[in-house]
Amino acid sequence: MADTTKKTIILFSGDYDKVMAALIIANGAAAMGDDVTIFATFWGLNALRKHQKVSVKKKPLQAMFGMMMPRGIKRLGMSKMNFAGMGPKMMDMVVKSEGAMFLPQLLEAAMEQGVKFVACTMTMDLLGFKKEELLDGIEYAGVASYLAEADEANVNLFI
Amino acid sequence: MADTTKKTIILFSGDYDKVMAALIIANGAAAMGDDVTIFATFWGLNALRKHQKVSVKKKPLQAMFGMMMPRGIKRLGMSKMNFAGMGPKMMDMVVKSEGAMFLPQLLEAAMEQGVKFVACTMTMDLLGFKKEELLDGIEYAGVASYLAEADEANVNLFI
Amino acid sequence: MADTTKKTIILFSGDYDKVMAALIIANGAAAMGDDVTIFATFWGLNALRKHQKVSVKKKPLQAMFGMMMPRGIKRLGMSKMNFAGMGPKMMDMVVKSEGAMFLPQLLEAAMEQGVKFVACTMTMDLLGFKKEELLDGIEYAGVASYLAEADEANVNLFI
Repeated sequence: MADTTKKTIILFSGDYDKVMAALIIANGAAAMGDDVTIFATFWGLNALRKHQKVSVKKKPLQAMFGMMMPRGIKRLGMSKMNFAGMGPKMMDMVVKSEGAMFLPQLLEAAMEQGVKFVACTMTMDLLGFKKEELLDGIEYAGVASYLAEADEANVNLFI
Repeated sequence: MADTTKKTIILFSGDYDKVMAALIIANGAAAMGDDVTIFATFWGLNALRKHQKVSVKKKPLQAMFGMMMPRGIKRLGMSKMNFAGMGPKMMDMVVKSEGAMFLPQLLEAAMEQGVKFVACTMTMDLLGFKKEELLDGIEYAGVASYLAEADEANVNLFI
Repeated sequence: MADTTKKTIILFSGDYDKVMAALIIANGAAAMGDDVTIFATFWGLNALRKHQKVSVKKKPLQAMFGMMMPRGIKRLGMSKMNFAGMGPKMMDMVVKSEGAMFLPQLLEAAMEQGVKFVACTMTMDLLGFKKEELLDGIEYAGVASYLAEADEANVNLFI
């Protein structure tokens, strides 16, 4: 049964602002001693991509998907006020001026605090992501694994 | 009190990718023996529209809404990379090449597995949806019904 | 442990349709006697802005954010079918013709029913919101406060 020491987040979105919200919640819960699992699926997988180009063999359509999607957490767009890529730069400027944490720092902090990142293998197949392209230290699983963890958690968000 | 055998999903979105995520979670939970209810509201109602045109009398503004919104789960756009309708076709191609299930199949599987679909009557009124336009076998209710079900569930997502 | 008398909603979105969904759920739960807390963060803060212009000193970038974002719940855009601002007007027309409640009325009803509105102080700093610009009667807190409330609730949504 659910207790109050576990949280799960499905990270469907790969938008700068939504990923930031997810990571702030995850870091906050981890700081309070909770187990936190983030299941990245669809566009959320982009936040877990390595920034450097990784040479992997893909089918043509999935190679195209790969080129069109942002490579890593430093390249995400905003869900609002993206302004052709200026939005994230403006956000980074206010993050800096307010002394807040940048997205890559939030991700690193989450990993250091033991937040578990799981990449959804089914959407990896659809969008053509290979494990070599994603960050080290993450896990791989499907919907059954998500549901098993959600059943143990008391807060389950879809972001 | 909540046990771990019931899940609810508010399907607010009518985007191909988000509807797919909702149906994969619903099918996964149903396969594990859970009761699952999907409350379709706002754009999520489009996923429950019949594909054929149904002749019903509507007020002018709502007739216009009806014409502008996609008629059924085969016609949904993507939340990202829609490319004026090419995105869903590209997704269908990778779904096929990966041997995954197409959206209409996911919906059919969910219904066959006993996932309960409920259309939100309040947003049906606003957007001008008539019962004749929506799929057979779904139920109709409002927010009080959603809350009563959510109180019995241990995972409640808003998608 | 969670009981069934408390709900939380993270209101991340500032879209007319999503804010409407959040307020309908909140009002419904409050009418059933539940404690409801809405944590407004990022674009959701726009729904809690005063409509009149409030003169406050801001850094240049945040002053620009302030000008670009909608000032209050009467000025929100739609997540779909916004049509350069015509969408919300069309929605208001169907709300009126169906005898439903307009967004500002839903917000007022929620406040009268005791729904607690909390503005996320961290995103207020980032986007440059000052307390003087937000509605009277709301509270101010961060992620730790959200998590503490979510731990007491049985339904926690991210909208």
